[in-house]
Amino acid sequence: MDLYFIRHGLAGQHGDYANDRERPLTDEGKRKTRQVAQQLHGLGLRFDLILTSPLARAKQTAEILRAEGLGKQLEEAEYLAPGGDLQPWLNWLGTWRSPDKVLALVGHEPDLSTWAELLVWGNAHGNLVLKKAGAIAVTIPDSGSPIATSRLFWLTSPRFLLGHEKK
Amino acid sequence: MDLYFIRHGLAGQHGDYANDRERPLTDEGKRKTRQVAQQLHGLGLRFDLILTSPLARAKQTAEILRAEGLGKQLEEAEYLAPGGDLQPWLNWLGTWRSPDKVLALVGHEPDLSTWAELLVWGNAHGNLVLKKAGAIAVTIPDSGSPIATSRLFWLTSPRFLLGHEKK
Repeated sequence: MDLYFIRHGLAGQHGDYANDRERPLTDEGKRKTRQVAQQLHGLGLRFDLILTSPLARAKQTAEILRAEGLGKQLEEAEYLAPGGDLQPWLNWLGTWRSPDKVLALVGHEPDLSTWAELLVWGNAHGNLVLKKAGAIAVTIPDSGSPIATSRLFWLTSPRFLLGHEKK
Repeated sequence: MDLYFIRHGLAGQHGDYANDRERPLTDEGKRKTRQVAQQLHGLGLRFDLILTSPLARAKQTAEILRAEGLGKQLEEAEYLAPGGDLQPWLNWLGTWRSPDKVLALVGHEPDLSTWAELLVWGNAHGNLVLKKAGAIAVTIPDSGSPIATSRLFWLTSPRFLLGHEKK
């Protein structure tokens, strides 16, 4: 089973919003996230489920993925909010997991790259670089704990999907 | 300083060649490696030096990178042959290293992904997937040991560069 960890796109400044959960993508963030989503679609990626953090910038990112045809099903999960725990997600995964399914998790840093490191190496050094609107993809085994048993097969920033932007 | 580990392209069958060091890229391997090189060029990548394993399939891959404009300098290094040691390369790196330089290392699996894991995590689990003509990119610190102090910022297979091939 393949998991794609996708970080939300560029969002408004901290401090401009009373509630950080409501901080939205900027126009530039929406545009670039849409371009990334179109590239992912062109690469043939399709998700059986897009699971997203309930924060505005993540939900908007997930909605863009859905709008560009990457998946029809979209659900919010509180454990994908910043500082969320891996364990509740692992519990949920136990009920959803099935070979050949493809899952997208839309959320925040440093949580997403930490989770990816835990799945692949069993501990986190903070040495995976996940840019806004970037992605990390891992294959988890069909059964048993995915911790330290998963394999990293893709990690990209928007730059490596879109190239340097034209001036 | 950025390092790009690049695995050689698709090569002829083991056993068809008396000397494994002479086993060349197939026509398909050359074609796909050229397409990958063109994509890397289009993404704006340029290497100050392309260091390659002396085996035919790696040298041919490195020559394709050079021919597509990714770098002018190409050198062979015996420690990039299969089963090569990290330490001689680290010794060489000490003499060549300089901020903002970009180095390509063309070689073999499982050595390249093992080296990348050592640079990023300090130990190797064999959980990075590096396909033929795929790439892993890490940033090493400007000074001090790069072991367990480097950061992984890109990992890709040809599939994520070229998309699914048209039938």
